[in-house]
Amino acid sequence: MLINNTPYRTVWMEGKTVRMLNQVLLPDKVEIVDCSSFRETADRIKDMTIRGAGAIGAAGAYAMAQAFCQVKGTLEINVAKEYILSRRPTAQNLRSGVEFVLHGLQTIPSSDVAKRAIALANEYADADANACKTIGEYGNSLFKDGMRILTHCNAGWLAFVDWGSALSPIYIAKRSGKKVFVFVDETRPRGQGSKLTSFELTNEGIECAVIADNAAGYYMQRGEVDLVIVGSDRIAANGDVANKIGTYEKAVLAKENNIPFYVAAPTTTFDHACATGDSIPIEERNGDEVLFTEGYDEAGNLVRVRIASKHVKAKNPAFDVTPACYITGIITEKGIAKANAKDIMRLRN
Amino acid sequence: MLINNTPYRTVWMEGKTVRMLNQVLLPDKVEIVDCSSFRETADRIKDMTIRGAGAIGAAGAYAMAQAFCQVKGTLEINVAKEYILSRRPTAQNLRSGVEFVLHGLQTIPSSDVAKRAIALANEYADADANACKTIGEYGNSLFKDGMRILTHCNAGWLAFVDWGSALSPIYIAKRSGKKVFVFVDETRPRGQGSKLTSFELTNEGIECAVIADNAAGYYMQRGEVDLVIVGSDRIAANGDVANKIGTYEKAVLAKENNIPFYVAAPTTTFDHACATGDSIPIEERNGDEVLFTEGYDEAGNLVRVRIASKHVKAKNPAFDVTPACYITGIITEKGIAKANAKDIMRLRN
Repeated sequence: MLINNTPYRTVWMEGKTVRMLNQVLLPDKVEIVDCSSFRETADRIKDMTIRGAGAIGAAGAYAMAQAFCQVKGTLEINVAKEYILSRRPTAQNLRSGVEFVLHGLQTIPSSDVAKRAIALANEYADADANACKTIGEYGNSLFKDGMRILTHCNAGWLAFVDWGSALSPIYIAKRSGKKVFVFVDETRPRGQGSKLTSFELTNEGIECAVIADNAAGYYMQRGEVDLVIVGSDRIAANGDVANKIGTYEKAVLAKENNIPFYVAAPTTTFDHACATGDSIPIEERNGDEVLFTEGYDEAGNLVRVRIASKHVKAKNPAFDVTPACYITGIITEKGIAKANAKDIMRLRN
Repeated sequence: MLINNTPYRTVWMEGKTVRMLNQVLLPDKVEIVDCSSFRETADRIKDMTIRGAGAIGAAGAYAMAQAFCQVKGTLEINVAKEYILSRRPTAQNLRSGVEFVLHGLQTIPSSDVAKRAIALANEYADADANACKTIGEYGNSLFKDGMRILTHCNAGWLAFVDWGSALSPIYIAKRSGKKVFVFVDETRPRGQGSKLTSFELTNEGIECAVIADNAAGYYMQRGEVDLVIVGSDRIAANGDVANKIGTYEKAVLAKENNIPFYVAAPTTTFDHACATGDSIPIEERNGDEVLFTEGYDEAGNLVRVRIASKHVKAKNPAFDVTPACYITGIITEKGIAKANAKDIMRLRN
């Protein structure tokens, strides 16, 4: 998608170099990081230069392709694979990207292997971008011209290779000539809404306003929100959805005000082994994320400041689970499912 | 209440000097400001050294008492009165404090007037403190030992002369030997929870944790919140309650999770001329309050930082209205009313 009117993906390959947006510096600075070896690419996954499930998967595929350009022999390829996977050991998509390249090479003569590995990594990245674009097209079918949409956190293209999940329908709507307005929950404590979603939307020329998370209910109550759309970190087999803390609040408020509440996510987000949301563990992060915040001072320096009284503690759950009963539908690249076991199973088959 | 184990009121009088906590510097610095004339006291009301409805009322009464110590004659007293009122022309309580002193002096011989004016101002301040303490006693009757309470914004003693409204029952509970735990919504965008409520509670030795406003629903959903209590800026005749933005969200979530939701406020908060919440105007404040925040850097300097992407706008409603149907009860100094016209009228009579 666009940054300063130039189209980007979060990660791509030119020759044998992997290039990626440095997401640590966003939204204030747009910098491209070049990685000339699989180790460099893998290290950028670890240090969060690249982040977001889909983007990490593609970076892993590209790192694996670079490994095939650099080293030969099963042993060395295996060392490279393990090095890449070890950078974010719990990231499901990282493994999926790496294994996509490995599996695709099993019957390839060794002379063609580097070229074919790059083609496979590109195929993996394209599949992520295309799935997101298809989510956007399904989602756009729900949008009417002039709609006012509320979103929480960042489920945009910066978390994927391109397009995003929750924001993709908004981009497709805009490009198909519909006018939309987006309420952007700032999404405390880390501010992915005010920092990333607002950055994405303004660069795409979409009308939007950041609001305190506290104000979402106010606008819903006044009838100024027509639809809510969010992403997801994990969806249980029964349709319960784990996503950024605060998603549950917005879902309850949407239901109370008869506003449709949609989750947009690629089908890779479904965890069919997870029967209900009750079995999704919720990470408790450091309370300092609530008590302190980072921002830019007048001189443009990134400064960490304390925003709470001195001796108080904080609790900081990173995610919550929205029960399926609050969810109008789940928008995937295979279509829109109802948030129930039967409909999710139908998508799977 | 206590700051560093020393009891304070927000404003009081010693001799002919009005003394007040400098609330602009809280929670990081505890400073007492001395005002030797009615003009000085009035100017501290204007520059927010003292803030909060109850505290402003008492400061106005004390300023008026100072005027009677300084000047004589109806004309000059009237000039003083108008000067004081003009500092916060829309503050209902400022007028009430000033007029309480004036009315009480109508039949007093002029030789005794200064002494009597000071006594009246003290009476006004004591009445505010006592009303809040009584709110605390009624509220405490709802609390069980071990309760986990959630509050939003700051409706503590810093907004009154002493005790506060929503926090008063918590102080009374603690002093009566009950153990309570308080979830403190940080209350974006201005952070009155993380800054002021957390400061009050830790100074009173009450166990608490600041949470992102987004996490309130999460703890309610998990059954970790037993009761919600908030203050109010204005209560309509039918029981609709205007309060800090986000209050409506917490009320809806409390109802959804079968958690009692109480509003604590002195009866002066009722606006009987206001039939329902629909006629309460909502102030839209500068969006920069959402896009920027103030905090302390490592060196202890107060710094303003931008916490959103560069070119985005924000919307910033300061209050919302919680419909009466979400409110379990309204705790006042005259008892606990149901949030309906009949019960509110009963309190009035």
